[in-house]
Amino acid sequence: MGKIICCGLGPGDPDLMSVRAAREVRGARHVAFFRKKGHPGQARSIVEGMLSEGAIEYPMEYPVTTEVAFDSPEYARLLDAFHDDWAARLAELALRDDVVVLCEGDPYFYGSFMHLHLRLQGRTEVEVIAGIPGMVGCWNAIGRPIALGDDVVTVLTGTLGEDELVRRMRNSDALVIMKTGRNLGKIRRALQSAGRLTDAWLIERGTMPGERVARLVDVDETDCPYFAIVLVYGKAWRMKAAE
Amino acid sequence: MGKIICCGLGPGDPDLMSVRAAREVRGARHVAFFRKKGHPGQARSIVEGMLSEGAIEYPMEYPVTTEVAFDSPEYARLLDAFHDDWAARLAELALRDDVVVLCEGDPYFYGSFMHLHLRLQGRTEVEVIAGIPGMVGCWNAIGRPIALGDDVVTVLTGTLGEDELVRRMRNSDALVIMKTGRNLGKIRRALQSAGRLTDAWLIERGTMPGERVARLVDVDETDCPYFAIVLVYGKAWRMKAAE
Repeated sequence: MGKIICCGLGPGDPDLMSVRAAREVRGARHVAFFRKKGHPGQARSIVEGMLSEGAIEYPMEYPVTTEVAFDSPEYARLLDAFHDDWAARLAELALRDDVVVLCEGDPYFYGSFMHLHLRLQGRTEVEVIAGIPGMVGCWNAIGRPIALGDDVVTVLTGTLGEDELVRRMRNSDALVIMKTGRNLGKIRRALQSAGRLTDAWLIERGTMPGERVARLVDVDETDCPYFAIVLVYGKAWRMKAAE
Repeated sequence: MGKIICCGLGPGDPDLMSVRAAREVRGARHVAFFRKKGHPGQARSIVEGMLSEGAIEYPMEYPVTTEVAFDSPEYARLLDAFHDDWAARLAELALRDDVVVLCEGDPYFYGSFMHLHLRLQGRTEVEVIAGIPGMVGCWNAIGRPIALGDDVVTVLTGTLGEDELVRRMRNSDALVIMKTGRNLGKIRRALQSAGRLTDAWLIERGTMPGERVARLVDVDETDCPYFAIVLVYGKAWRMKAAE
């Protein structure tokens, strides 16, 4: 009888994986990971060169269709069926052997594995190994404290409405904005309205090859970066910078 | 010519240290860490058994006095002098050899090393290795996602005023409350006023021996835990739990 071990892989640099996750990845016989069809998959890329010979890989490819929009109820149903199917397949595999599921960042922090995790409750043993969240890798790229003292930190997603973004951006010392991509124009306008745009950084592919660090105000309007996070640093750093 | 390498050690379990931090700790010849006088020090405890033979240790002991209160301007001056002194000593050491500074969690996230980091700017090369923040270890202890979808996460410190705590607790999906200790009574009252107390968890010594996970509502009023964080999970999990 095996179990499912979800390994948080950290922000992208394999050297920032935890000692425990690295050990599980190297020893794994069954390795599952999400990816878009036609892409290697971000989680799989992080462990390149680490898998043992003979490890069996299970790419969990998101359903693609040209007929329904990604934000339609029909696509939500497709995605539900996809998660149901993979939860069943992994639970079946775990009857015989351990299965390692690769997950970028920390699995419990907005991780896609949670859609399987909720479905696996009570069906099989699931172990989750914490990882350094992507945002931590990003704020390390700047080389300044994101928060000190009694700073308030707010984590937002770019999928929120513009008015809500503005209100929350006005009301926090440090800001982390996830899920940027196509929302970057909205995020930029909201930061501007909140008076925080000149303090904002864009970090793309933090800790990975091709890392880019830029002031958001300098990023081209039409830019739509992958794996990017927007950061505004807390008051302790801003005070120091103003000295 | 050496440099200063600040190693984020993660939440407490040495197995959750990054591969890079573990390598630096094992190879270090000079190892500095903060501690209270008469205590082994949390960071030093995490690396117990990992230091090489012959490693030279530099416990940076916080100034203690029975004559001034910890929140007085006089104590702030003592602390400033303490940080100035250690920044100078580490910079001096780094003229000849690498110096590893141990730091719990992630150094850039409320880390005490930042007081040295700011003072070392331009004086010596400083490298910081990201770690899993303490809060991540704590939310992993519960085994549920802290945030999913478009959840808003707010990180607060128990040192904030009660009214501000209430207002911010009302206005976020997930909550992380750091710096609990003597502030726990105030945090509990604020959660109650915000209608979030029954959702709140206390995690003490997350991922470490002696870990304690409890619903805050069940914790004794007079309890004043060490290394504890209060968590309220985001709406995705609360919805699931209500099914």
